[in-house]
Amino acid sequence: MSDKLNTRIGILGGGQLGKMLMESFSPLNVEYRVLEKDINCPASLVTNNIIQGSLYDSHGIRSLAENSDVLTFEIEHVDVATLKQLDTPTIPYPAVLEIIQDKGLQKEFYNQNGISTLEYQLSDKQNLNKAVDLWADDRFVLKHRKGGYDGRGVQLLSKGEFKNLLNSSDEGLNSDSGYVLERILIDAKEISVIVCIDQMGNVNSYRSSEMVFDPKANLMDYLICPSSLNVTLERECQAIAINAVKAFNSPGIFAVELFVSKEDEVYVNEIAPRPHNSGHHSIESCYTSQYEQLNRILLNLPLGSVNLIKPALTANILGPEDLIGEYELEGLDNVLAIEGVYLHMYGKKESKPYRKLGHVNILGNDTASCIRKMTEFREHLRIKAKD
Amino acid sequence: MSDKLNTRIGILGGGQLGKMLMESFSPLNVEYRVLEKDINCPASLVTNNIIQGSLYDSHGIRSLAENSDVLTFEIEHVDVATLKQLDTPTIPYPAVLEIIQDKGLQKEFYNQNGISTLEYQLSDKQNLNKAVDLWADDRFVLKHRKGGYDGRGVQLLSKGEFKNLLNSSDEGLNSDSGYVLERILIDAKEISVIVCIDQMGNVNSYRSSEMVFDPKANLMDYLICPSSLNVTLERECQAIAINAVKAFNSPGIFAVELFVSKEDEVYVNEIAPRPHNSGHHSIESCYTSQYEQLNRILLNLPLGSVNLIKPALTANILGPEDLIGEYELEGLDNVLAIEGVYLHMYGKKESKPYRKLGHVNILGNDTASCIRKMTEFREHLRIKAKD
Repeated sequence: MSDKLNTRIGILGGGQLGKMLMESFSPLNVEYRVLEKDINCPASLVTNNIIQGSLYDSHGIRSLAENSDVLTFEIEHVDVATLKQLDTPTIPYPAVLEIIQDKGLQKEFYNQNGISTLEYQLSDKQNLNKAVDLWADDRFVLKHRKGGYDGRGVQLLSKGEFKNLLNSSDEGLNSDSGYVLERILIDAKEISVIVCIDQMGNVNSYRSSEMVFDPKANLMDYLICPSSLNVTLERECQAIAINAVKAFNSPGIFAVELFVSKEDEVYVNEIAPRPHNSGHHSIESCYTSQYEQLNRILLNLPLGSVNLIKPALTANILGPEDLIGEYELEGLDNVLAIEGVYLHMYGKKESKPYRKLGHVNILGNDTASCIRKMTEFREHLRIKAKD
Repeated sequence: MSDKLNTRIGILGGGQLGKMLMESFSPLNVEYRVLEKDINCPASLVTNNIIQGSLYDSHGIRSLAENSDVLTFEIEHVDVATLKQLDTPTIPYPAVLEIIQDKGLQKEFYNQNGISTLEYQLSDKQNLNKAVDLWADDRFVLKHRKGGYDGRGVQLLSKGEFKNLLNSSDEGLNSDSGYVLERILIDAKEISVIVCIDQMGNVNSYRSSEMVFDPKANLMDYLICPSSLNVTLERECQAIAINAVKAFNSPGIFAVELFVSKEDEVYVNEIAPRPHNSGHHSIESCYTSQYEQLNRILLNLPLGSVNLIKPALTANILGPEDLIGEYELEGLDNVLAIEGVYLHMYGKKESKPYRKLGHVNILGNDTASCIRKMTEFREHLRIKAKD
């Protein structure tokens, strides 16, 4: 049994998700190694076993694999072809990544598997203009099929705005991977359900969380768990999320982003086959955090309880618009005095506009109290240029 | 403000308490260094900044201090004289350690400060026989004034047993630091209250926990929090513990071990000026763990909330009587399937009889459910010699 604790886990990517994955199993002293090109990455704060290299460098991936018993990734943008050739297993399976990496394939996959998703159309760069002309609504979402992340490569446009972009030959329109045009759902709730599947095929899923986005940064502003969905909709979202993830036939943890329309229609937006912002809260709010859960899956240990102990809120701590360079925090004395405030900083040396420098998890007796604490938190916490 | 997060913390001792101290503030990326003679200590699993040396080696202590902004200790047995000479502050203050290290001085301190404690008598090695003859009760506790730890150096004896020891010139009777004879309290509850004092002098304290001891090993078998005390006694224990700790005039966290007699009399047994077994549960059961709390105090940040989120139980994971050497765990799949079971292993390579290899924290809706889970846990978890 305990040999499972001797399983060496290799992580592709050394960002904050990797750091938190390692922190969550520190009490069990599991050994990790990381492939990452930035030697000063967040993961470097908790391990020295870092192989420096790009996630598209097959040599780097192979040397990570040679020193690991199981591989996982904390970002989708990795060399899948190499992962497929390895004897060392990757969890979730590389075939999942292949679909997820391409938002076009992802949409096709949902259609083929009868998973409810919004109407869309695929187009290459050349025919994009025509595709937009033929699109029914004036406004639509334009997504790069590949390479988008944290809202990059995703635009909400009217046909007029699109034409201007086209003529201004804006960088936003040079995606060689092609595009997905997608229907815009007005006033939809953005829900996330994290689904966990272990190596035996057992499944459980966390209470749904609800995201509130900052339109300027197109990044999550904060999220709450549990969401405001009624019991019927919660049950429906859980069923749709679990059904969607099962279609991938792979162990792992999967964040299923859902739209719930005003008319209570549920659509799968995207799925991230890894720990996700919408699950950060679980570090303090649930019996088992999403990070511990992934460790359990990688080590072929049983899934932990996903039950929520306290209502929670997560807010990103983003670099200010007007700051590029080294930074420091102000107001710690005030914010750390608030009960149930947990600050997670990622140890990034430099701030950039909207860069994720950390997040705060907030526990309360209900969502309203979590939001009150967040308001107080934001009144006091400041990110300032370092003197 | 954030400069506080750049405070370099030096820890005397690299045992499990040091490891958990570092783990608790990993999300804030605080920098630690450790003085410890065993390079494979538990702390070595979470940091490389280890200065190899004894805690009585003044050179080691000085080089730790030179690379730290504040010092603390995870064990009382350190060279206080050197700590007193340093410019780098030690928290709790070295003067506290001087009293705590000597169980005789500790008893005197309680008397001088009007802190309720059991009747006792001090004696050097030479006059011990006389002292025992004069002692009123036939049975008594015999403690080495110095060097005792985790029950070592503490014996419960009758006068007859004492005579036999004396004649057998047993190692138990060669303490050059002298002895404390102490009254035995029959059927007393053993209660612990952890009191926290920050650098501004603010005070708070955790709900009392109740210890159940394994008589064979004279080590904590398990503890529950909250204790079974009624509200009146809880209030009295809190008042006595806070009053006792305030007498030391030092910031830090202090585990106050109390006896509560059948007649509801409360006596201070001993005080540990550091994180303590009786506070392990707080890692998962409280808003702020005892480890995060000490970090906050060392960094001059505000005290965190000590409120209990869920009733909890802590059980030590001890080396079996019949095993000396490398070991492995059996039954992980069963025990990790139980909701609210948190295994903390200390990464010690070898097991010895009753050696603390780790502990388990268990959360439940009440004490009874915690105990049921512990029973199930113990049915399944086995420590076996490594094949």
